[in-house]
Amino acid sequence: MTKKNQSLLAYVKVQDAVDFAILMLKGQGVNKDDSVKVAECLVEADLRGVQTHGMSRLPIYVKRLSEGLINATPKMILDKPVAACASLDGDNGLGFLVGIRAIQEAIKMAETCGVGVVAAQNSNHFGMAATYLLQAVQAGYFAFVFTNAAKSMPPWGGREGLFGTSPFAAGAPGGKLPPFILDMSPAVAARGKIRLAEKRGEAIPEGYALDENGKPTTDPTAALRGVVLPIGGYKGSGLSMLMEILAGVFTGANFGGDVPDQYTVWDRPQNVGHFFMVLKPGVFVTEKGFRDRMDILVSRVKENPRAGGFDEIFMPGEIEARLEIERRQSGIPYAQSDILLLTELAREYNIAEMPYNVH
Amino acid sequence: MTKKNQSLLAYVKVQDAVDFAILMLKGQGVNKDDSVKVAECLVEADLRGVQTHGMSRLPIYVKRLSEGLINATPKMILDKPVAACASLDGDNGLGFLVGIRAIQEAIKMAETCGVGVVAAQNSNHFGMAATYLLQAVQAGYFAFVFTNAAKSMPPWGGREGLFGTSPFAAGAPGGKLPPFILDMSPAVAARGKIRLAEKRGEAIPEGYALDENGKPTTDPTAALRGVVLPIGGYKGSGLSMLMEILAGVFTGANFGGDVPDQYTVWDRPQNVGHFFMVLKPGVFVTEKGFRDRMDILVSRVKENPRAGGFDEIFMPGEIEARLEIERRQSGIPYAQSDILLLTELAREYNIAEMPYNVH
Repeated sequence: MTKKNQSLLAYVKVQDAVDFAILMLKGQGVNKDDSVKVAECLVEADLRGVQTHGMSRLPIYVKRLSEGLINATPKMILDKPVAACASLDGDNGLGFLVGIRAIQEAIKMAETCGVGVVAAQNSNHFGMAATYLLQAVQAGYFAFVFTNAAKSMPPWGGREGLFGTSPFAAGAPGGKLPPFILDMSPAVAARGKIRLAEKRGEAIPEGYALDENGKPTTDPTAALRGVVLPIGGYKGSGLSMLMEILAGVFTGANFGGDVPDQYTVWDRPQNVGHFFMVLKPGVFVTEKGFRDRMDILVSRVKENPRAGGFDEIFMPGEIEARLEIERRQSGIPYAQSDILLLTELAREYNIAEMPYNVH
Repeated sequence: MTKKNQSLLAYVKVQDAVDFAILMLKGQGVNKDDSVKVAECLVEADLRGVQTHGMSRLPIYVKRLSEGLINATPKMILDKPVAACASLDGDNGLGFLVGIRAIQEAIKMAETCGVGVVAAQNSNHFGMAATYLLQAVQAGYFAFVFTNAAKSMPPWGGREGLFGTSPFAAGAPGGKLPPFILDMSPAVAARGKIRLAEKRGEAIPEGYALDENGKPTTDPTAALRGVVLPIGGYKGSGLSMLMEILAGVFTGANFGGDVPDQYTVWDRPQNVGHFFMVLKPGVFVTEKGFRDRMDILVSRVKENPRAGGFDEIFMPGEIEARLEIERRQSGIPYAQSDILLLTELAREYNIAEMPYNVH
């Protein structure tokens, strides 16, 4: 499953990565329970191969916590004016904590109402959207998870960033076969992927982005100064607008390009917005009926005759789940540049370095 | 706005098109109110330039009604076990009638619960998804509208049709500026568009579809025997799977390739499933607050500096809304082949032909 990649050099044991993140977060005044939650989210992203949203983000969260731009001890407020919908004020806490609280509240409402919606504001970057999908799916629920983000993609026909490359994320439980865990950017490539290429000194394929003059580029640095492009032209642009409406306009958070980039803006919090919707399948068909029907669908997906160049057809999220099993055994492979970043972080904050093996 | 197109020859007054459709439907035993509703949906699609889902579909609905494969006098049953969710059994009625009833029920639930979900089964092809979005949006609500359909698109990595090219449809009201009406197929091109090309004897662009052997083709007839391709590879495939889960697996309808093609299968009803979710923006921010914020978003979309080749940036659905205004004045332009089809239909069922002007 894992591609041989010369930049992957160091293996870190899962518990060592979790413990390191916990120490770093506690050092910034995040309480123990919350530190564990966030650390597990970060490591889960790395386990699933979504390394743009894993430990490589820890330094920025720590920096923003230490600058007081993220609140280490948020007092979140849930406002629930009706039985099936709530607004959650994240009190500028870590996005992970806001996301976990929000999906839990949405699940509670879905349990009694069949559906639950939580609109969250005053939050921050919440990492990998699949984290929240998995919490709902493992409890037997369908979920939508949307967020907005700093501007990096233009509306179709434009050339300046307005929308984030926020994930479109939806999940449904399976029966005996793999569940449906779709977590995709409406961009041809996520900004985090371009940032990773820059960090690794690699070129990006053409079609990923325009430079600041609106011209195609393969230089990640030029691309990061320009805009990324949506899938399917106006279609991907429409999806990103949809997420800006639900996660931004609806929630009361910053929107329309006003969410500041967490890497470059140091004078104010992000006020990111998130949107969570959870459905209880048992309300429509029985829960067993739903799981049995999912298994029929999944088996038909996997048994579809292959197109040229494909050995196997995967459910969305299935490759990531297999990678997680593999990496829980092997440890998590990190690029040397990520290890350096985390070692520097440890030294800066006077915390024991994260142990790793090179092999 | 309208492109000069040599195959567009005949102009039909809006009321003449509506009246013709009403007569045809009443001739099949559909009551007057229902006939008016369906006729208006069909004509609305033509007015908005979505002519793959307008009057050109009337012959197939009439044929299936006359063969008893669609129930002209459905007794729909709404099952509402919780306050915010319901299942709707469409009793094999026209998809338009099921869709209209479902979105109305979802709006009612959203009015009291903030959110309303209706899962519909035992339905048929419901035409243009934007029809139902517009009903919610005009009443001040956000809506998702999904349906499943006959198989025509493979899962990513496969080569045999499994999913429909069902629309991903989402809508949100605006303030003074245009609303957000996104109604898009996850396919690079909708199957209806390929069928229209075939009817008109035109080639299709490469990248739209594979033939039955899994090879790229520009021949619409070969494409209709093969499969259409999703936008963004696995991403568009994931969106179509999502709609199959919500509209098919969830609802109790046919799913996983079991919805029969309405053009080729004449021994059973379709049992199509639809999924409707409606949100009340006023629950999260005030209704005025929401509309004001939408106007800020829309103005930023429209004021984004243009990419090369673009004179104006449009909101999803804005071109269609402008076309509707224009066509309500000019009449609806139909291809000669569509006029012939409708004239034949009138003769076959002994009903007065639809008047038109060639100019």
